[in-house]
Amino acid sequence: MFDDLSSRVEEHSTDSLRDRIWRVIFLSNTRSGKAFDIILLWLIGISVFVVMLESVPTLQEAHRKLFNRLEWMFTILFTVEYIVRIWVVRSKKSYLFSFFGVVDLLSLIPTYLTIFVAGPQYLLVVRVLRLLRVFRVLKMARHIGEANMLMNAFRASFAKITVFLFLVLAVTLILGTMMYLVEGVVANNPGFSSIPQSLYWGIVTISTVGYGDVTPITVAGKVISTIIILIGYGTIAVPTGIVTAELNMNMAKIHPDKRKCKECGHIGHDTKARYCKMCSTEL
Amino acid sequence: MFDDLSSRVEEHSTDSLRDRIWRVIFLSNTRSGKAFDIILLWLIGISVFVVMLESVPTLQEAHRKLFNRLEWMFTILFTVEYIVRIWVVRSKKSYLFSFFGVVDLLSLIPTYLTIFVAGPQYLLVVRVLRLLRVFRVLKMARHIGEANMLMNAFRASFAKITVFLFLVLAVTLILGTMMYLVEGVVANNPGFSSIPQSLYWGIVTISTVGYGDVTPITVAGKVISTIIILIGYGTIAVPTGIVTAELNMNMAKIHPDKRKCKECGHIGHDTKARYCKMCSTEL
Amino acid sequence: MFDDLSSRVEEHSTDSLRDRIWRVIFLSNTRSGKAFDIILLWLIGISVFVVMLESVPTLQEAHRKLFNRLEWMFTILFTVEYIVRIWVVRSKKSYLFSFFGVVDLLSLIPTYLTIFVAGPQYLLVVRVLRLLRVFRVLKMARHIGEANMLMNAFRASFAKITVFLFLVLAVTLILGTMMYLVEGVVANNPGFSSIPQSLYWGIVTISTVGYGDVTPITVAGKVISTIIILIGYGTIAVPTGIVTAELNMNMAKIHPDKRKCKECGHIGHDTKARYCKMCSTEL
Amino acid sequence: MFDDLSSRVEEHSTDSLRDRIWRVIFLSNTRSGKAFDIILLWLIGISVFVVMLESVPTLQEAHRKLFNRLEWMFTILFTVEYIVRIWVVRSKKSYLFSFFGVVDLLSLIPTYLTIFVAGPQYLLVVRVLRLLRVFRVLKMARHIGEANMLMNAFRASFAKITVFLFLVLAVTLILGTMMYLVEGVVANNPGFSSIPQSLYWGIVTISTVGYGDVTPITVAGKVISTIIILIGYGTIAVPTGIVTAELNMNMAKIHPDKRKCKECGHIGHDTKARYCKMCSTEL
Repeated sequence: MFDDLSSRVEEHSTDSLRDRIWRVIFLSNTRSGKAFDIILLWLIGISVFVVMLESVPTLQEAHRKLFNRLEWMFTILFTVEYIVRIWVVRSKKSYLFSFFGVVDLLSLIPTYLTIFVAGPQYLLVVRVLRLLRVFRVLKMARHIGEANMLMNAFRASFAKITVFLFLVLAVTLILGTMMYLVEGVVANNPGFSSIPQSLYWGIVTISTVGYGDVTPITVAGKVISTIIILIGYGTIAVPTGIVTAELNMNMAKIHPDKRKCKECGHIGHDTKARYCKMCSTEL
Repeated sequence: MFDDLSSRVEEHSTDSLRDRIWRVIFLSNTRSGKAFDIILLWLIGISVFVVMLESVPTLQEAHRKLFNRLEWMFTILFTVEYIVRIWVVRSKKSYLFSFFGVVDLLSLIPTYLTIFVAGPQYLLVVRVLRLLRVFRVLKMARHIGEANMLMNAFRASFAKITVFLFLVLAVTLILGTMMYLVEGVVANNPGFSSIPQSLYWGIVTISTVGYGDVTPITVAGKVISTIIILIGYGTIAVPTGIVTAELNMNMAKIHPDKRKCKECGHIGHDTKARYCKMCSTEL
Repeated sequence: MFDDLSSRVEEHSTDSLRDRIWRVIFLSNTRSGKAFDIILLWLIGISVFVVMLESVPTLQEAHRKLFNRLEWMFTILFTVEYIVRIWVVRSKKSYLFSFFGVVDLLSLIPTYLTIFVAGPQYLLVVRVLRLLRVFRVLKMARHIGEANMLMNAFRASFAKITVFLFLVLAVTLILGTMMYLVEGVVANNPGFSSIPQSLYWGIVTISTVGYGDVTPITVAGKVISTIIILIGYGTIAVPTGIVTAELNMNMAKIHPDKRKCKECGHIGHDTKARYCKMCSTEL
Repeated sequence: MFDDLSSRVEEHSTDSLRDRIWRVIFLSNTRSGKAFDIILLWLIGISVFVVMLESVPTLQEAHRKLFNRLEWMFTILFTVEYIVRIWVVRSKKSYLFSFFGVVDLLSLIPTYLTIFVAGPQYLLVVRVLRLLRVFRVLKMARHIGEANMLMNAFRASFAKITVFLFLVLAVTLILGTMMYLVEGVVANNPGFSSIPQSLYWGIVTISTVGYGDVTPITVAGKVISTIIILIGYGTIAVPTGIVTAELNMNMAKIHPDKRKCKECGHIGHDTKARYCKMCSTEL
């Protein structure tokens, strides 16, 4: 998602118009490339903001025509950009099915759908994902490093967190059913009128969100609530612990020893090592 | 709970029908074993979902008969499976009293109880615990590793978290009693009508759930609330810290290299290292 | 609080009645000492539970006399125990002003006060602190280790967390005042009728408790809420990070290398060390 | 913000009145300097407290004149202090534009503005930031160390947390729009009457604040809520993980021993060690 651009620079190194446009659109290390990216980001940001404002009833009534025109203006601009992107890129398939390729398309479709039905224009907020390109512009290299590290830590801890969430959901479902019996069936509390409803309450509670739209009214219900809260309080630590442990390991790896063995070329020695661990040459 | 299966493979290595069924039911590294597991998991998942839907009043009225038939169908299927499990397993006692043995039984009983009394069918959600078998199927080895690591970290931090929860509950009880005196006795706030009620509020607050069904109304009550919130805010860190520290230690221990340099005695080489990084001796 | 008992064993090693009672009351490694502790803990637990039940209006009306008698029974028992404790202990002053000495006294006074005024019996919940003695009984050594480690980590991170809480409170006060101006003065939201009130809301919000008894109603108020929530979301990490880092350091120290240098007697070598770092003798 | 004072001591080392006043006001290691700081901190604390009390309607009506006088008294005192500070400091510009220079000015202006318009006196709470000087007085060196470490960890993790918050906000905006369509447009839930409103709900939910002023009422809305809650529950770990990993690294770095063994090159000796623990060579 972030690191595949630089590797494709070589393919587009000729001086044809197509390659020059490619460099402006896809790279941001040249002056014109950076200018293009910044203008694009502003346009995306404004277009998302317009969609948000359009949904406010008072504003929409007052400026319906203006919103409509802006929306079409942005959509046409972005459509042109999308077509140019497809034209200039060599490996069209890999762009079209890349993360940003799909997002670029999805952020155009809703407006065209409004010709046939009302409503989908709000789906344009998907454009907000296009803003993730912002990391390419601002202090690019560094932020990509940060983002990649976060992603690595996420990927590594995903399996563990999934296992954990499954356990939590199983416990929540069982305690939620007890609440349904105690509060819903016996005490007729409307917030616990079914097991799915109790499960909703259980998740809201165990995650410490605690809306308060559904709360226990019986003594037994409050005791079970207390138990589920204490479980949540004791276990919210687990995802944190997982991510922290992963990040700890990833950050330790960030400033590795850059020394390269003169003999066998091995990189990745310990900071304290004096001899290559692969071929015993002094470093 | 997870690691006792492989050790029992040898006992069942003959080619009798009983042992072949055992391998299908209890293992998941063969094709038929995996297929059995996946079908079973789907059946369990659907049966839990049916129990959840059955509790929704509108659905239950409309499809009472259908739900009843499905419930009996699943129960009979699972009863047959339970009996076959007992038949094929050698050490019947260790299965019957294992975690999954007890859960398998508990997820059958409620339906049979409905012959005598109404209501217990909702207890069938205990079947959700049978789904924990899912980890045996999907990328088995890896997920078991994850789950085992989580369990080890849990076990190691259990004593510490218990000590901590006890301290938190003691503080909550004392501050809750003060709230009872200030809000319940003096200001007649119905949410603080007794000490157990105040304790419920205290736990909801200190865990940062904060339903809002019980809130202070006096100035003194709000000051005490603020104190209890700040205590909760400062101490929610503790279970997290405990689990994280345990996980950190567990993850570091996963693959330590035990080789010791014959020359300088250094321990802590990389798994791939061929020469001591301190004195260049071959390992 | 936990580790000063063993050091006083020697003083009480004669065989007089006084010293024998001392060993029963203050130690728990003998059979009678353990029995005494367990009975005492049960009595304390029940007496706290009685105080809690007494505060429930319906129960109190029905069993006023019973509660009164139980309360006096427990108080007289604990008074006798307190007097005996003072009698048998050698360093009376250090007991009287120790943590448990003060708690033991405080858990007697309220009942005697009820002779003159009504109400203070609820302060008897302070007895719950006496239950902290439980750690002396159950798997004593280990739990004390856990508790001491938690206390050390707490003590070490106290200064840092205080600095942090002060910063958070300063930010909350400033944003709370802005909410008072925006919501209270301009929009007449009764929940923000004064700055202290807004500060209460700010603390409830930034700690992610979020009762919902006070919520913004204006657009500007919701924007400021969003800012304060994002600050809280981004900074709740800090106490956790502090405690985790401390615990990490404390746990690393728990299993130190026990080897003692034959030459200079130094203890505290690294696990990997081969030579004493103080006198160069081989370990 | 904290460490630039000591470096300027030399400039002001003459014995003129101006330099003597500078030492009293800007340093706190002399007796008079400490006394000045403590008196100033008390005055600031009281003046902030007065501003808070003034905002309580009942108190303000009863003591309007008193509050007004106190406010002017404090403001005149602080104005004099501000002028003296400018007079005695050598590098006036670096003081005026330093953090405390700006805060000192901002905490005077509101009172003078009240001559022209009513209301701004509440902005005086900005004075609370002046209290940050407290760390210069109480156990100065140590607390500054703590504060600096927290700031370093913050600075290092700021970029990462920003990236993370941006991702969370993007997800919240997209799910919030779905809630707007499901709850606001279809079910007419007034809490989801526009996308900005839904975004407010999304942030309140994903941060686990959960006021409960806006809650879903449809089944689809509750399902989306559950998804956003589980995302929040799984990701609240991330800022914590980032800060913890940074703090871990900062704390480990506090006192590393830089000595390298002449014989075997081992680095990482204890500060107290006299001989290399790997090869017994004297360090």
